[in-house]
Amino acid sequence: MQFHLNGYRTGDPAVAEPAAELGGGDALPETVDVLIVGCGPAGLALAAQLSAFPEIRTAIVEQKSGPLLRGQADGIACRTMEMFEAYGFAEKVLKEACWVNETSFWKPDETRPGSIVRSGRIQDTEDGLSEFPHVILNQARVHDFFLEVMRNAPTRLVPHYDRRLVDLTIDTEAPAGAAAVDVRLERADAGHEGEIETLKARYVVGCDGARSAVRGSLGRELHGDSANAAWGVMDVLAVTDFPDIRMKALIQSEQEGSIVLIPREGGYLVRLYVELDKLNAGERVRNRNITVEDLIAAVQRIFSPYSFSAKEVAWWSVYEIGQRLTDKFDDVPEDATETRLPRVFIAGDACHTHSPKAGQGMNVSMQDAFNLGWKLAAVIRGLAEPALLHSYSAERQAVAKELIDFDREWAEILSGTKKGSEIRKPDPKVTQDYFVRHGRYTAGTATRLPASVLSAADGFQHLARGLPIGMRFHSAPVIRVADAKPMQLGHVAAADGRWRLYAFAGPDGAAPGSRLAALCAFLAGDPASPVRRHTPAGADIDAVIDLRAVFQQGHRDLAVDAMPQLLKPVKGRYGLVDYEKMFSPDLKAGQDIFDLRSIDREGCMVLVRPDQYVASILPLDAHGALADYFAGFMIARSKALAPAE
Amino acid sequence: MQFHLNGYRTGDPAVAEPAAELGGGDALPETVDVLIVGCGPAGLALAAQLSAFPEIRTAIVEQKSGPLLRGQADGIACRTMEMFEAYGFAEKVLKEACWVNETSFWKPDETRPGSIVRSGRIQDTEDGLSEFPHVILNQARVHDFFLEVMRNAPTRLVPHYDRRLVDLTIDTEAPAGAAAVDVRLERADAGHEGEIETLKARYVVGCDGARSAVRGSLGRELHGDSANAAWGVMDVLAVTDFPDIRMKALIQSEQEGSIVLIPREGGYLVRLYVELDKLNAGERVRNRNITVEDLIAAVQRIFSPYSFSAKEVAWWSVYEIGQRLTDKFDDVPEDATETRLPRVFIAGDACHTHSPKAGQGMNVSMQDAFNLGWKLAAVIRGLAEPALLHSYSAERQAVAKELIDFDREWAEILSGTKKGSEIRKPDPKVTQDYFVRHGRYTAGTATRLPASVLSAADGFQHLARGLPIGMRFHSAPVIRVADAKPMQLGHVAAADGRWRLYAFAGPDGAAPGSRLAALCAFLAGDPASPVRRHTPAGADIDAVIDLRAVFQQGHRDLAVDAMPQLLKPVKGRYGLVDYEKMFSPDLKAGQDIFDLRSIDREGCMVLVRPDQYVASILPLDAHGALADYFAGFMIARSKALAPAE
Repeated sequence: MQFHLNGYRTGDPAVAEPAAELGGGDALPETVDVLIVGCGPAGLALAAQLSAFPEIRTAIVEQKSGPLLRGQADGIACRTMEMFEAYGFAEKVLKEACWVNETSFWKPDETRPGSIVRSGRIQDTEDGLSEFPHVILNQARVHDFFLEVMRNAPTRLVPHYDRRLVDLTIDTEAPAGAAAVDVRLERADAGHEGEIETLKARYVVGCDGARSAVRGSLGRELHGDSANAAWGVMDVLAVTDFPDIRMKALIQSEQEGSIVLIPREGGYLVRLYVELDKLNAGERVRNRNITVEDLIAAVQRIFSPYSFSAKEVAWWSVYEIGQRLTDKFDDVPEDATETRLPRVFIAGDACHTHSPKAGQGMNVSMQDAFNLGWKLAAVIRGLAEPALLHSYSAERQAVAKELIDFDREWAEILSGTKKGSEIRKPDPKVTQDYFVRHGRYTAGTATRLPASVLSAADGFQHLARGLPIGMRFHSAPVIRVADAKPMQLGHVAAADGRWRLYAFAGPDGAAPGSRLAALCAFLAGDPASPVRRHTPAGADIDAVIDLRAVFQQGHRDLAVDAMPQLLKPVKGRYGLVDYEKMFSPDLKAGQDIFDLRSIDREGCMVLVRPDQYVASILPLDAHGALADYFAGFMIARSKALAPAE
Repeated sequence: MQFHLNGYRTGDPAVAEPAAELGGGDALPETVDVLIVGCGPAGLALAAQLSAFPEIRTAIVEQKSGPLLRGQADGIACRTMEMFEAYGFAEKVLKEACWVNETSFWKPDETRPGSIVRSGRIQDTEDGLSEFPHVILNQARVHDFFLEVMRNAPTRLVPHYDRRLVDLTIDTEAPAGAAAVDVRLERADAGHEGEIETLKARYVVGCDGARSAVRGSLGRELHGDSANAAWGVMDVLAVTDFPDIRMKALIQSEQEGSIVLIPREGGYLVRLYVELDKLNAGERVRNRNITVEDLIAAVQRIFSPYSFSAKEVAWWSVYEIGQRLTDKFDDVPEDATETRLPRVFIAGDACHTHSPKAGQGMNVSMQDAFNLGWKLAAVIRGLAEPALLHSYSAERQAVAKELIDFDREWAEILSGTKKGSEIRKPDPKVTQDYFVRHGRYTAGTATRLPASVLSAADGFQHLARGLPIGMRFHSAPVIRVADAKPMQLGHVAAADGRWRLYAFAGPDGAAPGSRLAALCAFLAGDPASPVRRHTPAGADIDAVIDLRAVFQQGHRDLAVDAMPQLLKPVKGRYGLVDYEKMFSPDLKAGQDIFDLRSIDREGCMVLVRPDQYVASILPLDAHGALADYFAGFMIARSKALAPAE
């Protein structure tokens, strides 16, 4: 955590200095750069990302009257925790959440009809998959953490509640930078009921859920299977002698259906997903008059021979949800991507719906927003070409498709229902095997982005085989050279819209004549350097591309004095030195990042996008290829950097 | 973190439900159980501890007009981090603070007169000393975290600022439970300037610094050496090519004096302690007209051949502070301890002053408060005899004496001054050796409490050689059985006034006939059980003595169903089961707590006080000795426990 760069300030360093002009007031501004519709996980992740940029005018509206108090989603994948770390609140979630450490499997007891018996027990997340665990926390608290990031940001962004989207109109002929989307909203707050507000937005993002009004305004629809199984869900304080009540458990009974048990935060609460009767095709849950007592009775039947006594049901619902997907996540028709630029986007449940049992929904939604956020910021800040925005739908629609397919398969395995008319019983062995095989999916770390304008050639993947191009940068432990702090390399990546360029040094480190020294000289001084080309005048030299060097030597074997200037950049109004650019392997702990991530000992560059995905891997001397990569979608800015360099 | 025990609640679980009656308002209450004078580290640590108890009326007053913004202290020892964990904010400090990972030593360069050269570099804290690092953070932020704990507590405790203690009078003849201290305070807040408030307090604690008015009212004084060296100190944003600017460094020049360099939070700020000229005996700093420019010039001379350019000095001071100590930390004369009960206490700088360079002051002060807080709470809540309060001065005065001696020696080694007229140059080799040898002191983990009413016989120390009686409970990694969570055993200890009884099981675990099973049966059901004797009627069975079992087997080899009821206690209004009482060694990580802490494989009990100090070690079947220990200072309460047991 770095602060005091531009002078000493008292108080909480997480609270940024306010920007010169703040919005505020209870009316919406007349014009914004980005209007976000919906305060769910996707909307808030996007708003929190954009709130970091004082030069971007963002508004976020929500139909409800205030923040969510009791959320439905609760699963937080390892990958999402990595993203929370970038937003700066992973440690809060780690503290408050329930950790899913193991998953147990229960099946019908062949020796005692009508009873269940434990059939297996496995580690929930494979070793080394992420530096974070899989955790469970009420969605409302995740919202709280995003709202706090927004409040503390320089823009002091707060949602406008009690606003319903009426409609929006896109002027597709308007020039690229124009606020070409006209939006009408209806107020519902006291004293303003029914008032219509209008505003002009450069971009609108619909994060307004499965019945998205924004999606409707684009004429897009969710397509997919109709739901064919009903499940009940409840958050319950209960007394039971079931021994795995604090474990994630998949329980399949002989006759009474299945339960997915999710232990919840605080040590007492549990969530139970309870399979209800199979539905006739087309039959809808809302016609079935299921009560919470029905749910509890079903749990008692499935749990047999264990007792189950519900003391308080904090929330319950019966749902029937299919896997559905929208064709495209923006307003540009498939056949017009060459001629039109996207201005309206949809994210989260507005694009794709999942069954809750794979714990994917909230996570995928936030990843949508994380993908879109930095791109919108880069375009609005004049760093990137607006065509970059096409890559959002291209990347995330393909990812959603894969996840939807996974979710469908998983839901079928759990309920034992197969497509069409054939109905098969769930097989505990199949369930456990599938769970193990797909752990990386559930953890969110298996996502691999498809081709887009951001794709680099993968010809140099062999230089860092443990960091696949198109997948998230997999962190590893390192020692920060200047102060010997043990830390995770990936945690230098904040949700600040910057690119990270990890330069893994060869055996000669940054000595004169080394390829790392040459790279630093190129980046700092060559007119073709992407750092020089794309960093705005007057900004710190690491404001757009943040170079970090990782050496092979232990930190005591490196001389800070002898490092290239670019690894000790001078920044801010005082020209203070940033000492946090140099890292060594954690040799003492026996965890050498070069081995852990199969980094070639000759060194290489690993370029990582602002949303933590590996963009490119290049040899240390591939200066031109690095410059070309950025030139593909970035705008050339001032070549006059501050004397800092 | 446990919550929802008495029903589901939305919102931040760190914010407790408010107590039925809250004080509030800007006037002080007329009567309180505890009046704390002073909002420094000691006062706030005490207030935060007491704020957890709705039945205790606490007030805390401060002469200044509001919270501290720029603190002077900054060193946070490992032991203090362990205490912060109990208060619930260690993770916030870990995130925001600067970690001191290594310390470097610089000496005169024999080959280049007038220059310094690095003479050594060592790990700051020895491996395994604590699960926490040594960190540096502005005292004002530590205050903020305590204030947040107080605001979130059921009592919603906030300080009354602008209050100066005028005087206090103790009615030494009053009965034990009476509010026998009359206090007069003068207000300085707008509209009330000069108004005198009076209140009656059962106990008053002076945390009002080196010039303590409370101490004065007791007629006690600080005794000790007069200061004989002047140091300047500044928090500075600077540009330098000194390579260890982000390390703690002890720099001893040939002619220009010494510097203690402390890197500070945020990555840019550093604190420099700069030795000024030796003072003549009795000469006072305030007569010397030293300016910040003098300090900077001294740094530049000592740093040679490295450059040093100060860009902003956030705070600076020149001080001369000796090691001073008060004879006794309460109002009872040494010869009256048999006949009088203490009613007024002093803590922190009011009792002892240190040089800042060993980083002890703030830490020792908070440990004073942690020691006193649970004792006051236990007496006021009717759990313990008032005579227990004698142990505060007995324990902490002796600890302070040891630390003062250490601090004096360390200060002399750094400045090279010896007692009396002999003046010797500092010897870098001696400095480094001393630093290494005394690392445990600086870390705060070497404290060993002297004899008091709380002392148990140490005849069974051999059953847990790694957990010395009278020293802080040294945490170790474990796996929580019911949910397989990897965690630190010591982190079950919150600052909630409860005793922890760690029962390390023998090879037979808690099987029927085992000594652990017999212990559970005794504690839950025997009339002589200290749990039954000392737990108030209607309270949860773990409200006073919190039993935790540590098994030798891996968590998958233990059956939660078969555990004794006391290890799965039912609690709260619903009788929910607390599953967080059973632990296994972290065998997978190769860290077996039985080996790490030299626990006898036959098992034992380790009894730990509410302030985390090991009180007693006993065989698992020493039921009577355990009961006798508590009977020595605890009050027998109802034997009618809730059916929970």
